[in-house]
Amino acid sequence: MSKNASTQEIETPGSEAELDRLVTQIIGRVADKWTMYLIDILHEEGPSRFGELGRHCEGISQKMLTQTLRAMEREGLVHREVYPVVPPKVVYSLTDLGSGLGAAFCGVWKWAAENRTRIEAARRDYSRRHGE
Amino acid sequence: MSKNASTQEIETPGSEAELDRLVTQIIGRVADKWTMYLIDILHEEGPSRFGELGRHCEGISQKMLTQTLRAMEREGLVHREVYPVVPPKVVYSLTDLGSGLGAAFCGVWKWAAENRTRIEAARRDYSRRHGE
Repeated sequence: MSKNASTQEIETPGSEAELDRLVTQIIGRVADKWTMYLIDILHEEGPSRFGELGRHCEGISQKMLTQTLRAMEREGLVHREVYPVVPPKVVYSLTDLGSGLGAAFCGVWKWAAENRTRIEAARRDYSRRHGE
Repeated sequence: MSKNASTQEIETPGSEAELDRLVTQIIGRVADKWTMYLIDILHEEGPSRFGELGRHCEGISQKMLTQTLRAMEREGLVHREVYPVVPPKVVYSLTDLGSGLGAAFCGVWKWAAENRTRIEAARRDYSRRHGE
């Protein structure tokens, strides 16, 4: 399950540490609920405008939506297309890289759906033990 | 890739919406870099004390480590064992549920390792286009 499983082909300790650092840093950016929600929405809805994404992504603020989309564009996960009309039309779509991340994260959606009853039971148990 | 792929067995629209909401809420809690780092560390290092986890989890604050471990315990991802010695010894370990989430998230570590060159290229391209 770990990142190290993916680094076996690296030969020198130096480059392995460097790869580890880079991969950990990438995970630090993409292991984020808004990124995962937006990938899911773009996958379900197809290319979408800013306002449409905001409506589908419950609870996100305008500022967080802007920041998350910018970071996703920077990492190559979404493509931002500006159409020269008045007012300007901006459409976001998943890149191949973004679709790939969505597919990789699919296992976590499945895990959540399959284990929801156990998670709810753990929460009840925790609340009971901590008198919440 | 989406959460909806896992909800096909649900029959009524009401319960499907409810399941969707619950699964989305679970993802909102676990799609978090510190949770993913800590699962990886506990998988690699085995049962660990608070201070050990802090040393292995680069960049995490004491407060964030406390909050994340508490949330993980609440969701049933880690088990917290207190040994009645002086000073008290507290050891955290992965539960089966936590290991399962780690396995499900493994695909994202692999995706990051396999696509690191494309992600770095996207970042360079973004920086160039935005004059950073």
